[in-house]
Amino acid sequence: MSAPEGTPIRAIDVIRKKRDGGELTRAEIEALVGGYTAGAIPDYQASAWLMATLLKGMTRAETAALTDTMLHSGEVLDFSDLHSRKVDKHSTGGVGDKTSLVLAPLAAAGGLTVPMISGRGLGHTGGTLDKLEAIPGFNVNLPVAEFRRILETCGCAMIGQTAEIAPADRKLYALRDVTGTVESPFLICASIMSKKLAEGIDALVLDVKTGSGAFMKNEKDAAYLAELMVETGERMGKKMAALITDMDQPLGCFVGNALEVVEVLDVLRGEGPEDLRDLCLELAAWMFLLGGSVSSVEEGKKLSEKLIRSGEALEKFRKMVALQGGDARVVDDPKLLPQAKQKMDVVSAKAGYVTAIQCERAGTACVILGGGRERKEDSVDPAVGFVLHKKVGDSVSSGESLCTLHYNSEALGARAKAMLLESFEIGSAPPKHKRPLVHRVITKSGEKS
Amino acid sequence: MSAPEGTPIRAIDVIRKKRDGGELTRAEIEALVGGYTAGAIPDYQASAWLMATLLKGMTRAETAALTDTMLHSGEVLDFSDLHSRKVDKHSTGGVGDKTSLVLAPLAAAGGLTVPMISGRGLGHTGGTLDKLEAIPGFNVNLPVAEFRRILETCGCAMIGQTAEIAPADRKLYALRDVTGTVESPFLICASIMSKKLAEGIDALVLDVKTGSGAFMKNEKDAAYLAELMVETGERMGKKMAALITDMDQPLGCFVGNALEVVEVLDVLRGEGPEDLRDLCLELAAWMFLLGGSVSSVEEGKKLSEKLIRSGEALEKFRKMVALQGGDARVVDDPKLLPQAKQKMDVVSAKAGYVTAIQCERAGTACVILGGGRERKEDSVDPAVGFVLHKKVGDSVSSGESLCTLHYNSEALGARAKAMLLESFEIGSAPPKHKRPLVHRVITKSGEKS
Repeated sequence: MSAPEGTPIRAIDVIRKKRDGGELTRAEIEALVGGYTAGAIPDYQASAWLMATLLKGMTRAETAALTDTMLHSGEVLDFSDLHSRKVDKHSTGGVGDKTSLVLAPLAAAGGLTVPMISGRGLGHTGGTLDKLEAIPGFNVNLPVAEFRRILETCGCAMIGQTAEIAPADRKLYALRDVTGTVESPFLICASIMSKKLAEGIDALVLDVKTGSGAFMKNEKDAAYLAELMVETGERMGKKMAALITDMDQPLGCFVGNALEVVEVLDVLRGEGPEDLRDLCLELAAWMFLLGGSVSSVEEGKKLSEKLIRSGEALEKFRKMVALQGGDARVVDDPKLLPQAKQKMDVVSAKAGYVTAIQCERAGTACVILGGGRERKEDSVDPAVGFVLHKKVGDSVSSGESLCTLHYNSEALGARAKAMLLESFEIGSAPPKHKRPLVHRVITKSGEKS
Repeated sequence: MSAPEGTPIRAIDVIRKKRDGGELTRAEIEALVGGYTAGAIPDYQASAWLMATLLKGMTRAETAALTDTMLHSGEVLDFSDLHSRKVDKHSTGGVGDKTSLVLAPLAAAGGLTVPMISGRGLGHTGGTLDKLEAIPGFNVNLPVAEFRRILETCGCAMIGQTAEIAPADRKLYALRDVTGTVESPFLICASIMSKKLAEGIDALVLDVKTGSGAFMKNEKDAAYLAELMVETGERMGKKMAALITDMDQPLGCFVGNALEVVEVLDVLRGEGPEDLRDLCLELAAWMFLLGGSVSSVEEGKKLSEKLIRSGEALEKFRKMVALQGGDARVVDDPKLLPQAKQKMDVVSAKAGYVTAIQCERAGTACVILGGGRERKEDSVDPAVGFVLHKKVGDSVSSGESLCTLHYNSEALGARAKAMLLESFEIGSAPPKHKRPLVHRVITKSGEKS
């Protein structure tokens, strides 16, 4: 039963309605989330509502209303005066996932505008901001006016969330983190989409990870979240596509902030490992397709390859680094990036084939070295990490190096080594089924495999 | 997965475990509830846990552990030096439910000790403390030493909850009230039982109400709560019985604090309406049975009738009133109780039979008059209320009085009159099925009808 018009909506009634499985109206969601952001509704009522929402779910209309409420809780950037299409990519996070650093300059080289607002690493996954900050001088904390100026000049810019963007999400996320209410696809969708739509974009490509290194361990959960985000974005007038991609082993071979920048430069030079390169081409192709630059994914891939081959993508990266205050010399001389004091090989005790790399464990090894954070307030060591020499399916002989650790502390190095050794599974034969890089693509018109 | 021994239990892990439908250990419940009571766990974590508990439920072992944790959060009274059996009765609340005021002196007259700690009215239901305070001078706020002295002298005493008793319940209840987490049978059970067991009793008779004036509108919910409380009490070594009794119309004919004291005196004199008298005899019989004074319910009823006939129960009431500072002359002269300034009849517009009295509405009419409270901090007017002349099944002619309102404000009188008129349903024939006074009895050995 809805309250008659004009009656103020009470938080307790909204909580009870959701608790009993009801569908909240837009006004009820606005009253609760708006009231909470403004400080009129206390934490304990918001957390009861969050738990009821996690356990009872939300309809698509509720999810869109929540996203919209959170989006409009703060500043929504407006780049409508820029004539090119504004397109971004968002990943749900993984280990060795450095595609953003390739995609922003690559898409910009192809004429799109990429106003990318990213996050930091948390738990076993890395974060784009931490990777960028491995470049000496690179400033991710730009005021909106400066962000706009760089976008106009360069076509891409990469910054961190500002205090003005989606304050409702910042407040709700902090509460979810301590009340066991993170793992709701509806709340995750609203959190991601409210921040991304605040960038003032026309289109968004989602990279939803699945596998042992992803937050969504199984493909079904990943696809559910992907569909929810695609539908929510489309309800709000955005072009959307979601790729469910593999995160059952680290992406590429380099894990750790400065190390990942090295691999990004490799890809931008037309080198680098196949899986990382292929995923970047696929995601860039979708960005070009949604941005209207091409009329098919294949055409988008060809355009992306051309932009890499010609060096235009790499030049865009160099320009962005310089404009954001970073030392652009790292592009030609990656040795200028922070270097760990010591290296050590992690060798296999037996011969056989790598049948799996427990990806969350591998990511945790990097956190142990100091390359990630267990708590938000931790700082990261940009130099540490590891380089994989073997990936799933590779043969390995006894005593051969599986990966090389880059570390700054003997004690932490020893712990990370043990963790990495544990993460490798060696069998007598390669795995029968190779996991695909892209599991499926979800768009408005339905799924495509 | 339980944490290894010695590891401190984190609230977030307890919340997540319950959210995912797990069974909490006693240590986990103690960590959460104890931590919350001590102020170490914030409101927002407790409310997330409460909502997860409401939606995911609790096992019997968890319910007992929660009850025990809440019970031992404060003082547990110890009357083991008193030689008679300590027996109490608890009602889940209703309209016109004044049985406690009959039962305490009646059971004490039969040799039991009744250390009754009661509550105030809230919402449409009345509260024992408000009724007692209608007696001029009656003091329900006694220190424990004084409570004990009166129990030793008189065998019964009736007070309000002290700050020392089950502080965890007081804190949790306040939070449940504002977070939509009141309506969980597990949380209700722990709340009621922790307070009742703090009285240091050997046995407890539960009067679980069902019908339009009860919190549990349907019998299934009432029986579920009753079974839960019986099992929880028995797990904690108490003799338990629960009667599921009717609250589909007000109990007796008098509703309102002073008016109900008048009807209590009627019953203690062997008069009063049949339903109220029968229920008092039934509940007293179970108190005597659980207290070991008799060997059957029938025998208990006979003992109760005898104690009323002999005047012993009434004398016990007079003694308790005097010992608690009240004006005992009201026993012989009920006119000394607060009197409303005005009276008015609520007459039926048509002839027929009373087919139903919407009991929650009838109770709300008393609240409107000032006889109850909508918020905890409201005060009550002891004089107001109403006296029913017609109950379900009675024939009524057009223009005949259904009830008499006792009121102190014209405006409130008019509103209460409209509300009461609405609560009466008049049909052309009496209802086919008469609802029983006692729907069922639930004891350890199973149900008895």
